[in-house]
Amino acid sequence: MKVVKFGGSSVANGEQIKKITNIIHADIERRVVVVSAPGKRYSEDVKVTDLLIQLGETIRDGGKYDEVYDWIMGRFQSIIDELELPQEVYQTISEKIDASIQHVIEEGERGLDALKACGEDGAALLVSAYLNQSGLDAAYVNPSEAGIVVRDQPGGALVLEESFERLYQLRERSEVLVIPGFFGFTPEEKLVTFSRGGSDITGSIVAAGVKADLYENFTDVDSVFSVNPMLVDNPQPMTSLTYREMRELSYAGFTVFHDEALIPAVKAKIPVCIKNTNNPSAPGTMIVSELEDRERDVVGIASDSGFLNIYVSKFLMNREIGFGRRLLQILEDEGVSFEHAPSGIDDMSVILREHQLPPEKESIVLKRIKDELEVDTVLIERGMALIMIVGEGMNHNIGMASRAATAFREAQVNIEMINQGSSEVSMMFGVKSSGLPAAVRSLYRTFFQEEKVKQS
Amino acid sequence: MKVVKFGGSSVANGEQIKKITNIIHADIERRVVVVSAPGKRYSEDVKVTDLLIQLGETIRDGGKYDEVYDWIMGRFQSIIDELELPQEVYQTISEKIDASIQHVIEEGERGLDALKACGEDGAALLVSAYLNQSGLDAAYVNPSEAGIVVRDQPGGALVLEESFERLYQLRERSEVLVIPGFFGFTPEEKLVTFSRGGSDITGSIVAAGVKADLYENFTDVDSVFSVNPMLVDNPQPMTSLTYREMRELSYAGFTVFHDEALIPAVKAKIPVCIKNTNNPSAPGTMIVSELEDRERDVVGIASDSGFLNIYVSKFLMNREIGFGRRLLQILEDEGVSFEHAPSGIDDMSVILREHQLPPEKESIVLKRIKDELEVDTVLIERGMALIMIVGEGMNHNIGMASRAATAFREAQVNIEMINQGSSEVSMMFGVKSSGLPAAVRSLYRTFFQEEKVKQS
Repeated sequence: MKVVKFGGSSVANGEQIKKITNIIHADIERRVVVVSAPGKRYSEDVKVTDLLIQLGETIRDGGKYDEVYDWIMGRFQSIIDELELPQEVYQTISEKIDASIQHVIEEGERGLDALKACGEDGAALLVSAYLNQSGLDAAYVNPSEAGIVVRDQPGGALVLEESFERLYQLRERSEVLVIPGFFGFTPEEKLVTFSRGGSDITGSIVAAGVKADLYENFTDVDSVFSVNPMLVDNPQPMTSLTYREMRELSYAGFTVFHDEALIPAVKAKIPVCIKNTNNPSAPGTMIVSELEDRERDVVGIASDSGFLNIYVSKFLMNREIGFGRRLLQILEDEGVSFEHAPSGIDDMSVILREHQLPPEKESIVLKRIKDELEVDTVLIERGMALIMIVGEGMNHNIGMASRAATAFREAQVNIEMINQGSSEVSMMFGVKSSGLPAAVRSLYRTFFQEEKVKQS
Repeated sequence: MKVVKFGGSSVANGEQIKKITNIIHADIERRVVVVSAPGKRYSEDVKVTDLLIQLGETIRDGGKYDEVYDWIMGRFQSIIDELELPQEVYQTISEKIDASIQHVIEEGERGLDALKACGEDGAALLVSAYLNQSGLDAAYVNPSEAGIVVRDQPGGALVLEESFERLYQLRERSEVLVIPGFFGFTPEEKLVTFSRGGSDITGSIVAAGVKADLYENFTDVDSVFSVNPMLVDNPQPMTSLTYREMRELSYAGFTVFHDEALIPAVKAKIPVCIKNTNNPSAPGTMIVSELEDRERDVVGIASDSGFLNIYVSKFLMNREIGFGRRLLQILEDEGVSFEHAPSGIDDMSVILREHQLPPEKESIVLKRIKDELEVDTVLIERGMALIMIVGEGMNHNIGMASRAATAFREAQVNIEMINQGSSEVSMMFGVKSSGLPAAVRSLYRTFFQEEKVKQS
């Protein structure tokens, strides 16, 4: 049994829904479908979810909302027309939206979640109707009926453990089930949405719950790239990567997918495949628990800028037991989380994201470090970037560090920081942001272009 | 004004004392002399301090001590004979030793410090007498008279701040002053010794107190080597290094001198020169506060084995604010100090000296990590070595990491850990102990033999 999830571009219009219908027809194992809200049809288009948010906020603020309402309903109507679906489907969708509008009028802010979720809900109704029309026995299943129980918490719902057992019951159903993504219900039956991009979370929860053999996540790319395509032309695709590699790649801002959305599937050891709705025969990128045989040591290069370094020095620091711990305690007290903290005999650095240290917090943290730790120097260096090379094959491969460091040298980029020694599947480098593009290109040449076979 | 300190081999017999007399004659600025106790004359010989400890412990335990007493007095008598010094010097030394023996008989354990210090005291009496005989105006100065005031604490005396001002008064004296190393007096006039090797501490305190232009530390080597001569044949000497470099080199067990003994001199910014009594015209190794122009980027390679790695992994560790801090807190609670703690997204390592974690402590620490941090994995990897390359020239030199990592690759040694990013003057590498000799030799070839000029 496979769970398939389709993103917004895959349900953006009738043509796309025909594609996903073909995909479901092509494999009898694809028995549970999770859908996002209709996305953009062209680059200037607006996603239905954004329209719904605009609608909700306009109503909440007492504004005139006819135009945006008509726009939304037009999106659904055009798909119905394109797919020649019965008008009853439109009726069901519009009744749900009208009811949600009524909630917002009555409850204000608290009613917004239900309205925001109408995009996914409508898409699920459309897809299930079209699947039926195409000859499959399909059924729309509401998350409440499916068993997705969540805890309401600011910024996003959190799935409750009991959901997984309840979802497992879906295996009894004989139809192809279509579940709207992005929301669940509290035990008190209140609709709550996940954080943005939450359809991926729903797909992952459902895959874990039904104990799927595979969770297919359909997007609009053939596979995940081994390096940021903004930095390298036509980068190689990743055919497979392990959960560990995925976690490491996400560390320095690998943004193709939201790794935390995959947590439920990873915990249940469900393999995940990232595929393309527009090219379903492409193999995609498999995310698996165990490494298969692979040609390369390095699977991907992740990079991100926007980091800073707090540098602290104090003569005889190494004789002060607990110095490092007390420095980290100050950051923890101030709610600042850090990425890495290399220490020397008389100095220590802490690398963190710049947004963790806005100016008002910076002055508090600096003052506390000076006063409480009586340091000789404390400096903040902004404009740092982190670059990470990731691959299970790096483990115990003599010469990895040499090849990587030589790539930086060839790019004439100074390495400010190296973090190796904790994870066996990655090495992290800190450079000045200005050096990031050249360094990434040079690393890509070293690990993806110059050598086609393993070295040791 | 220079303060000169002579180690045990420089006062081991009359011939050596003649050499140091020549050294003092050769430079009118050498006005304050600090001496150790007579050391070994040949490899099977016993140091006078060890004989004094044996004497004291025998007396404390009520044993027969004639033989060791005669041995000690024989050492002093033979020097007096060799240098043809007046017999009164012997009289003074033996009276002091007899008085100290009386203390041990009366006070037991508490009297031992005074007896242990008789070696340095006797050496100072001998040297001052011979300097006078050689035509210099010299005077023995007791540490109490000199102004070395200390706090008595287990394991070694700690100098009190007031000493420095009192020592400054010595500048008024016109004679060459000879001060015994290794001990000071509490404000209550109790004699207390420094930790073993404490003559270096005395020399450094005196140099700081008199605000010497130079502190010369005479040993039996021409200079400090750039790498452990047990690992590399005929290694290059270091002609100069900075305090920062010295601190970093001491991190991984660079044992030529005890860097903490130099702290008072370093704090007072007194330049230090390590020289050879047996070859005083050799330039020695200068330890300075500011880098002078130098041919090489790397000044030294330090290495030591006997480290271990505590490896901890936990899925989603990076979302747990304070995880790293709590791990370090457990170690701190158990009195375990660490060297470096690299962290990844889901794992963290802590590198420490093996002796920090004896078996009974290991089980407590492991249990606390498992129970309190609820980790997925915690492993201890023993048999690790640390290798450190040090040099002020490394700062912002593109390609340093590449050259170093390539040296490991050429030695076919896998790098388990890299620590770069805190100190600007060093890079630290962790390897398995078995790989240490090959890695050090390869690094030496790279940084000291292959290139004679700076690269960038």
